Amino acid sequence: MTKITQVNGKEITGVGQEIQKNYEAFKGKGLKLDLTRGKPSAAQLDLSAELLALPGSGDFVAEGGVDCRNYGGLQGLTEARRLFSGIMGAPPEQVVVANNSSLALMHDTIVYALLAGTCDGARRWFTQGATQAASQGPAQGSHEGGIAFLCPVPGYDRHFTICKEYGIRMIPVAMKEDGPDIDAVERLAAQDDAIKGMWCVPKYSNPTGTVYSDAVVERLAAMKTAAPDFRLYWDNAYCVHHLTDERVEIANVLELSAKHGHPHRPLVFASTSKITLPGAGLAMFAASKENVKWLLARLTARTIGPDKVNQLRHVRFLKNEAGILQLMDKHRALIAPKFQKVLDIFGQKLARVPNVSWTRPKGGYFISLDVPKGCAQRVIALAKEAGVELTPAGAAYPYGKDPDDRTIRIAPTFPGLAEVAQAAEGVAACVLVAAAEKAGKV
Amino acid sequence: MTKITQVNGKEITGVGQEIQKNYEAFKGKGLKLDLTRGKPSAAQLDLSAELLALPGSGDFVAEGGVDCRNYGGLQGLTEARRLFSGIMGAPPEQVVVANNSSLALMHDTIVYALLAGTCDGARRWFTQGATQAASQGPAQGSHEGGIAFLCPVPGYDRHFTICKEYGIRMIPVAMKEDGPDIDAVERLAAQDDAIKGMWCVPKYSNPTGTVYSDAVVERLAAMKTAAPDFRLYWDNAYCVHHLTDERVEIANVLELSAKHGHPHRPLVFASTSKITLPGAGLAMFAASKENVKWLLARLTARTIGPDKVNQLRHVRFLKNEAGILQLMDKHRALIAPKFQKVLDIFGQKLARVPNVSWTRPKGGYFISLDVPKGCAQRVIALAKEAGVELTPAGAAYPYGKDPDDRTIRIAPTFPGLAEVAQAAEGVAACVLVAAAEKAGKV
Repeated sequence: MTKITQVNGKEITGVGQEIQKNYEAFKGKGLKLDLTRGKPSAAQLDLSAELLALPGSGDFVAEGGVDCRNYGGLQGLTEARRLFSGIMGAPPEQVVVANNSSLALMHDTIVYALLAGTCDGARRWFTQGATQAASQGPAQGSHEGGIAFLCPVPGYDRHFTICKEYGIRMIPVAMKEDGPDIDAVERLAAQDDAIKGMWCVPKYSNPTGTVYSDAVVERLAAMKTAAPDFRLYWDNAYCVHHLTDERVEIANVLELSAKHGHPHRPLVFASTSKITLPGAGLAMFAASKENVKWLLARLTARTIGPDKVNQLRHVRFLKNEAGILQLMDKHRALIAPKFQKVLDIFGQKLARVPNVSWTRPKGGYFISLDVPKGCAQRVIALAKEAGVELTPAGAAYPYGKDPDDRTIRIAPTFPGLAEVAQAAEGVAACVLVAAAEKAGKV
Repeated sequence: MTKITQVNGKEITGVGQEIQKNYEAFKGKGLKLDLTRGKPSAAQLDLSAELLALPGSGDFVAEGGVDCRNYGGLQGLTEARRLFSGIMGAPPEQVVVANNSSLALMHDTIVYALLAGTCDGARRWFTQGATQAASQGPAQGSHEGGIAFLCPVPGYDRHFTICKEYGIRMIPVAMKEDGPDIDAVERLAAQDDAIKGMWCVPKYSNPTGTVYSDAVVERLAAMKTAAPDFRLYWDNAYCVHHLTDERVEIANVLELSAKHGHPHRPLVFASTSKITLPGAGLAMFAASKENVKWLLARLTARTIGPDKVNQLRHVRFLKNEAGILQLMDKHRALIAPKFQKVLDIFGQKLARVPNVSWTRPKGGYFISLDVPKGCAQRVIALAKEAGVELTPAGAAYPYGKDPDDRTIRIAPTFPGLAEVAQAAEGVAACVLVAAAEKAGKV
């Protein structure tokens, strides 16, 4: 393919026409493809088919004689906490196993910090906060200032939605090769005690696939923060979600934080949403003993306990950490070819287009595609016209605003391989059109 | 039995000795019985054994082609909302089906009102509130005043725990034969705009078994409230939990509130905790369209959706409202004899003891026993000594303080019939000792 910027004056029209023709041909196929969300495919869900008939009508007694059918057991079943202890990086006593959504756990721990304070803070977060729900229009009798979170960008839109819902100011920090710009993080966290937390997806980050280096994890654990109860919201959503032979490991943030005198800093989250069933999985929380005690004290006001039958169901199905890893290998066999297909097509079609680049993740659920500045919205609009739904431009940024309008999140897991290929071809065609338009070539 | 107050001077010692002897004999049995919580027995849970193997490994597609295994479906499955529409008293569009705890739904709707405001209020509740978690010690930078809830007493301890957690002032209102003292409720709600809500267990109330009369429901629906966004927290926990042939019905609070121009006033809650499995059931919410829209907008920030597989599991098992009622008949067959046993024993042992009375509920999970003023704590301590665990004195009152120290909540469902009989005998023996002590007879 001719490199767009190298096209000389005479060839412009021809190249533009070719690009346009490609796109129109793609549009003509009348496809209906969805690359918006990091959802497992039906084939992946089939891997957990057994779960739908478990634990079986006679199996309901857990360790210690616990009748899983009845009330109670706020922290989760002993065997469930043991099952996830390794991937959470904490002993079972410091693990809480809850209902189906780790996002809900993150949301709730923020709400509790806002309304009840943390285990080591002098004041609840709200008292500093201009907390204000999006639904309520202008600020109402709010406090000056308000708390803030550091947000590595691009990041996970639903993290940002929680901040938006509660009026928590979002401060973007650039994502680098080895994690968030740690110099900037250290500087910001040290200077402003309104900065109470930071969103982190430390392994195979959403959407860039970034893996935090050991050095970055240790600096996050060790850094001075102006807020004594600063929290790392450590969303280890992709802890065992490998796409290559290399099972990437990251440093243990709980151990490092304790070593550096900040044991309560990390709140670690994970779930089985992309291990077993997204709609019917388990969420996990791990933290210092004091944080666990704090969370359980808050949860006491909310519920009598989680769905223990679903925990037993998962224990029976997954059995142990080796069982989890075996299952994840099967996921990988299904989804790695889809990632490869996208990478291959982008390589063929977009390799020489200036200012276009994309990630080659070793795990997780996304490829992050960077297009020329100011082109992301246009690419997404073109794709939509051609029947390919992409995540809205800016979704990976606080307030939905990508300052450069250049990042597009590609989620290749849900459609079949052939559809992924079609969609990637289509996205490439759209990128070429938008880039050519931008360069004034069409 | 000789009536204690009728004992003449000469007989005092003898009667006291007899009562004391009875109690010591009971204590000598070395029992270990628990009448504290309204938990179904194992035999009741066995009624839902089938649920533990459902939906089965090939069954996961719900109406509209929804794959229950995957993400999404914030409001709950269509068929699940239809299944519970009748008992919620609202069309399926106005029903939300959520995870396993209606208490969690009540908690969360309060949290959302505190932090985000209601669908029809000018300000979020928190801005008026001296909201302060119990964990945080003295008020911290709080506002004047704070919001308040009306609390019919005796009531459900976990409702009061939510208020305590968030510093919501609790204003007790006496429970009468036909519901809360409605004159007092009308007067209080009309005069103070800090009063934002009221706890109601309208049918077979916890712990008194009270059924709100149609007149009381209508006055609650129609009354003027100083707060424009006053909410009835309508915890219809025992909606189908009958103990007699009479399936008691109550007035439809959603319809009556709409009729009287306050459509957003009631938030209706229920769950399958005491229909199927407490640890692994479903919680339901019903309200005006605007309230449902409001709740879903809040939930969007919290989760991608509920456990739809568990909803499908329940739909397959319960099938329809008739299926629910049939199952409840089986529960009744198991628990009504336990209630009758307690009533029989109390009748035999306590009928003529002055200032002792108890409820004869037509449904629900509790018998409320009133002992002579100042005796409840003593009875509970005596019972504990004899191996019978009762709900702590005062639990049914805001702040755990029964001003008369006279109400004891009896939960007869969990133990076997023989144990219930033993426990009731023991409680009666303790009441006699405490009453005799109070009357100066021992």
